[in-house]
Amino acid sequence: MNYFSSDFKLGILGGGQLGKMILYSTRKFDVYTCVLDPSKDAPARLACDEFSVGDLLDYDTVVNFGKKVDVLTIEIENVNVDALETLEDEGVKVFPSSRTLKTIQNKAHQKLFYRDHNIPTADFSRFAHTSQIDEAIDNGGLSYPFVWKSARFGYDGQGVKVVRRYTDLLDLPNVECIAEDLIPFKNELAVIVARNSEGHFKTYPVVEMEFHPEANQVEYVICPARISDAIAKKAELVALKTAAAFEHVGLLAVEMFQTEDDEILVNEVAPRPHNSGHYSIEASYTCQFEQHLRCVLGLPLGNTESKVAGVMVNLVGAENHTGNVLYKNMETIMAMDGVTPHIYGKKQTRPFRKMGHVTIVNKDIAKAREVAEKVKRTIEVISK
Amino acid sequence: MNYFSSDFKLGILGGGQLGKMILYSTRKFDVYTCVLDPSKDAPARLACDEFSVGDLLDYDTVVNFGKKVDVLTIEIENVNVDALETLEDEGVKVFPSSRTLKTIQNKAHQKLFYRDHNIPTADFSRFAHTSQIDEAIDNGGLSYPFVWKSARFGYDGQGVKVVRRYTDLLDLPNVECIAEDLIPFKNELAVIVARNSEGHFKTYPVVEMEFHPEANQVEYVICPARISDAIAKKAELVALKTAAAFEHVGLLAVEMFQTEDDEILVNEVAPRPHNSGHYSIEASYTCQFEQHLRCVLGLPLGNTESKVAGVMVNLVGAENHTGNVLYKNMETIMAMDGVTPHIYGKKQTRPFRKMGHVTIVNKDIAKAREVAEKVKRTIEVISK
Repeated sequence: MNYFSSDFKLGILGGGQLGKMILYSTRKFDVYTCVLDPSKDAPARLACDEFSVGDLLDYDTVVNFGKKVDVLTIEIENVNVDALETLEDEGVKVFPSSRTLKTIQNKAHQKLFYRDHNIPTADFSRFAHTSQIDEAIDNGGLSYPFVWKSARFGYDGQGVKVVRRYTDLLDLPNVECIAEDLIPFKNELAVIVARNSEGHFKTYPVVEMEFHPEANQVEYVICPARISDAIAKKAELVALKTAAAFEHVGLLAVEMFQTEDDEILVNEVAPRPHNSGHYSIEASYTCQFEQHLRCVLGLPLGNTESKVAGVMVNLVGAENHTGNVLYKNMETIMAMDGVTPHIYGKKQTRPFRKMGHVTIVNKDIAKAREVAEKVKRTIEVISK
Repeated sequence: MNYFSSDFKLGILGGGQLGKMILYSTRKFDVYTCVLDPSKDAPARLACDEFSVGDLLDYDTVVNFGKKVDVLTIEIENVNVDALETLEDEGVKVFPSSRTLKTIQNKAHQKLFYRDHNIPTADFSRFAHTSQIDEAIDNGGLSYPFVWKSARFGYDGQGVKVVRRYTDLLDLPNVECIAEDLIPFKNELAVIVARNSEGHFKTYPVVEMEFHPEANQVEYVICPARISDAIAKKAELVALKTAAAFEHVGLLAVEMFQTEDDEILVNEVAPRPHNSGHYSIEASYTCQFEQHLRCVLGLPLGNTESKVAGVMVNLVGAENHTGNVLYKNMETIMAMDGVTPHIYGKKQTRPFRKMGHVTIVNKDIAKAREVAEKVKRTIEVISK
């Protein structure tokens, strides 16, 4: 199947900001694209050839959408996997595969997958319901502190909580979950692995993530990570091993901890373009969105090296601001060297909501990091 | 007027591949855009918020379209300037101005403008009709060889012909035209000048153009040009002087000749993103399309320097091929280092028709140039 042929169609499940950014690359290659999203106002409704509104978790909706395309990919994991399985049986190329998504959609299964494939990850216990955690603590099977994670989906840090004492448990939903060792770490790292349908691999440089303490959201992504070559190599190998275990096609973003004693532990993965790769639009020879397309279309992989160093700052809604968004001092940051804002186009802001990101590039990573802090101090995402 | 405000609207006259590439940048900034184009299949119909089909040369159509936007820009010069004048009187910000477009639309007026502003350009004579050229030659006022140019619009080398003998004149249309000295030159150079509505200037590096002998179309654009710093400086100053003379807002691409004795002569200008700046998408800190937006929206100018060297190859239809286009060996060139194809999405090819372009970037310009030649030899734009 040649995507340059006029009758080729690419399907994307999800029309959020990731879908929108995939479409920048799609237009460049003039690929015919169909997007399915539950919201009629989805950012990716523009720039695609066919936009359909529908529930990504509804079996029939996804099957009927998928039937009209040749290759189907996603910008969000939370889709109906049974529908993907049906489409695979009917000969639609689905990347990532239904099997991969099924494993990733459930954090307990994801953790078991790592254990089964000897991929280093923090120890954990599974619980059918949060309420069973008390009991485990009482009988000494579990002790504070630990990280509670709901097995099912949570985005932007929802569904994850550090539990230090009994009272932290009280407001948690009573759902299937895991209790994971709280790892004291030096760094949070990520590696994006690209693998195309021919089985060729490439890895992007290791990036370093700084999290916002309260929001549990990435505040800065720094490429390359300011770590030793030995640690970088180690992280790359763990990421490659993980992608290989999934027999993944497309991008796999692998988030990892660098522990106090320089162990590398896999935290979680995303089988798609990822926030930790946004810097690549401005900094890399091949941006992650183009690379994802190259993977799922069976094209040769592009160069994953960087032209320049990059720092990405997430634009999140300011605290105590809810309502129609206003980007204060945008002109000021755009006057700074190497600064490119990306506005996702959400009309409403609320505390810590992801509203966009800003990339800062420079030949010198220290300079880029400096400017990034200035950007962070200057720009305000508030309500009118 | 702040474009970040929800009620701001940007209008673009023309929805061709340039408009489409402007929209990549627009989406990133989440600017609300309206596009007018005569064809319902225009590439930019996707990715804009409102798409209207209409004649860019019809006064009422352009006025009615322009009335609903705050800032109006163009991707093609051939629009109704009287309509733009009316819109300017009604307070719409029009960049480039109607006055600039009026001058540029007529090559005779454009040449007179250079002469009046002491901008170096090749000598020329004006003719109300091509038929009057004979007479001028007979009475010694003009001699072969010279370059015939129709005063009114011609694209991709149409409307331009080197006249070496009487017979070359016979098949020319009998229209308003100029006869320009045929300049023996070492190089064709171009400089893109960016100027925002605050009057701040920045220039992109001087690029070098290699033309296809028959088609009179640019075959390679090389950035930076392989010329001495002295010549580069000279070319930059001429370009700046030209942009200043027009009191231009937006991008102004200034095409120049470097003569045998290292004079710099202005050939022609384009008041918009330009083929000679396509390399900037992959090679520059700020691509020309984002820069054009920054200019017309009154935002600070971005860095015009390059991250890496770039060579752009135009993808034109192969000779003896007319019909449904097929891009042969696309996968092969995509496997080459630093290669990014841009397909404009025209369904039909014909000899020398611009179907897309390919950018090749590399830290080493010589390597980029090497790969560019491989690309040129490998890719074939043919009919099925």
